[in-house]
Amino acid sequence: MTERMRTIYLDHAATTAVDPKVVEAMIPYFTEHYGNASSIYSLGREARKALDEARRTVADILGCKPEEVIFTSCGSESDNLALRGVSLARREAGKGNHIITSPIEHHAVGHTCEHLEEHFGFEVTYVPVDEHGVVDPDDVGRAIRDDTVLISIMYANNEVGTIEPIAEIGKIAKEKGIPFHTDAVQAGGTLDLNVDGLNVDLLSLSAHKFYGPKGVGVLYVRNGTPLLPTQTGGGHERNRRAGTENVPYIVGLATALRLAYDHVESNNQRIAALRDRLIDEITAEIPDAQLTGHPTNRLPNNASFVFKYVEGEAILLNLDLAGICASSGSACTTGEAEPSFVLTAMGIPPEIAHGSLRLTLGRENTAADVDYVMSVLPGIVEKLRMMSPLYAAR
Amino acid sequence: MTERMRTIYLDHAATTAVDPKVVEAMIPYFTEHYGNASSIYSLGREARKALDEARRTVADILGCKPEEVIFTSCGSESDNLALRGVSLARREAGKGNHIITSPIEHHAVGHTCEHLEEHFGFEVTYVPVDEHGVVDPDDVGRAIRDDTVLISIMYANNEVGTIEPIAEIGKIAKEKGIPFHTDAVQAGGTLDLNVDGLNVDLLSLSAHKFYGPKGVGVLYVRNGTPLLPTQTGGGHERNRRAGTENVPYIVGLATALRLAYDHVESNNQRIAALRDRLIDEITAEIPDAQLTGHPTNRLPNNASFVFKYVEGEAILLNLDLAGICASSGSACTTGEAEPSFVLTAMGIPPEIAHGSLRLTLGRENTAADVDYVMSVLPGIVEKLRMMSPLYAAR
Repeated sequence: MTERMRTIYLDHAATTAVDPKVVEAMIPYFTEHYGNASSIYSLGREARKALDEARRTVADILGCKPEEVIFTSCGSESDNLALRGVSLARREAGKGNHIITSPIEHHAVGHTCEHLEEHFGFEVTYVPVDEHGVVDPDDVGRAIRDDTVLISIMYANNEVGTIEPIAEIGKIAKEKGIPFHTDAVQAGGTLDLNVDGLNVDLLSLSAHKFYGPKGVGVLYVRNGTPLLPTQTGGGHERNRRAGTENVPYIVGLATALRLAYDHVESNNQRIAALRDRLIDEITAEIPDAQLTGHPTNRLPNNASFVFKYVEGEAILLNLDLAGICASSGSACTTGEAEPSFVLTAMGIPPEIAHGSLRLTLGRENTAADVDYVMSVLPGIVEKLRMMSPLYAAR
Repeated sequence: MTERMRTIYLDHAATTAVDPKVVEAMIPYFTEHYGNASSIYSLGREARKALDEARRTVADILGCKPEEVIFTSCGSESDNLALRGVSLARREAGKGNHIITSPIEHHAVGHTCEHLEEHFGFEVTYVPVDEHGVVDPDDVGRAIRDDTVLISIMYANNEVGTIEPIAEIGKIAKEKGIPFHTDAVQAGGTLDLNVDGLNVDLLSLSAHKFYGPKGVGVLYVRNGTPLLPTQTGGGHERNRRAGTENVPYIVGLATALRLAYDHVESNNQRIAALRDRLIDEITAEIPDAQLTGHPTNRLPNNASFVFKYVEGEAILLNLDLAGICASSGSACTTGEAEPSFVLTAMGIPPEIAHGSLRLTLGRENTAADVDYVMSVLPGIVEKLRMMSPLYAAR
């Protein structure tokens, strides 16, 4: 069908390849500076030094104090520690039982809220989103009760790329004295992470979304925020997260974060231009194609759509055959038969939500990749529609 | 002081260097096969395949089914998931509120038990250990109550190397229908891990103790064992541990475990001979030196001691200056001013427990390393005693 054999990777929201510079930074900590960072001899002190430096790098980018950075094993752990840690600690202090979140959070937040309801007796309020997936800060304000212990709203949605008004929500939370967590896993590497600017008390990051390794994350916790640890043992991370420090990956995370923010504006600009071409050309050239998420206030790399009369999964399989890696939504929900809960929360009818496609660009993508997508995608959608009884009956 | 500049690493119980073969096995999964294992395109399926293969390797060595293997981010997470997961699930099912453990567990178990007592209303019974750090299975049997939900006893102690009678304890637990967890973090790589032979329902491992990377572990969970997840989100690990799979490290863990068990007997034999030389020569040549832990039933690589009239930390600093990495006990308790709780639980008086030294051998150690230790350690102990008012007043 085509002479090109190269894989076009357009699923950077699912994960990214580790930057070779990051791999290079990690390697010495596997075989050479392999000491346990808690050990007192020189080999251990080397590891400790690398850890301290990584923590300072992260703190620098977040505009926080190094001791406010907790290294975790992934974004999901960061979200769990934030939600479970704050909710349980504040309830223990007699502050209440009520959590506020949105219906479009990643499962690491959404399922954790459900878990806290089902197994730990918490009550959760889900503030609505509009048709673009935007939370209204005033809705958050109205949902606050005397017994609210935590507010958790994501920075940017992983499926449709919508950026939420975090700073405004944070302002309201701060006025009421309620800890505010944001899942910034999708925002990390592209959006501003200054925690004071964002008015957040807790913020989750995952390295593998910004060309770092899978298996390491950050939870920023503002000094003074009550937090019951979810993983106990040794006194690592100031008694907030037990476990021998994964020095290579922590060094990798810091290196990747530094690389991402060293050229964040020019990178965003270049990638957003490719994104806008995808959005413009797909909605122009493919009938019944609709952009999902906010038209402008969205992640620079996210182009997500629904196509009527076609199954998202069928599009993906055909794109895969053409050498294009894409997804229908979150990788973490792959295999679920239901249509995306994000899309349905935005008011998209289930039968249309089934036809979702998410293309998320990254550093290595070029204009030629967009050309290639446009050379195959319209044909795939058309072919699938020809086979669809729904399309024939439209 | 000496012409040798090479570091003699004798703290393999704290952590190990990653085997270059393990690094080699991991590398392709950083930059080449970097797909998200939950993605449906070929790049994701490659990652999934590597994950499945790693799981089969681990299952093969544990003698269990692949689906009974949960990959975690470390031994501490495995212990936390076992303890919190089973205790909370069984309490929710109305089975009770009581946990049995020993006083010499790693903090990942011990502090988690305390946490479950302080914050979740559990009650914990600590069965005693004898002067060698051995738990009597009959004591475990006697501690069992109608409301006992979990028994957790370590396979081998991390400080003194004593191997516990796990199979016998497991037999008693099985007769009473109580889930039995063992923290096998120190045993992994040297002792038999067959879960049926050991009569265990849950078993924790950590890759960095057997020349794999820090930041990845295993929790074996026997089919049918109730377990409430501690980290919720995506459906990873059959809904028992959410988080994008850390494919490189999981491949690394499986590779390291396979390498360890491919030559386990000959490795153990060689290392135990070095250990026995350390034990024999140190107790013969240094006055008031006492072996800690069981005289024979101990980890092949562990030689641990207490020296009267001297501080363990002072020995370590002097050994470090001589290029020898060693520890006074668990790396995870470094910085604690108290004497080792393991040693005091074994009846060693605090003032003697303060003078502890743990030498733990590994693959790269040779007879020359033992010679070198013996050329410096007696002098260090003597020098420190000369400076000690306690020694002068003895």
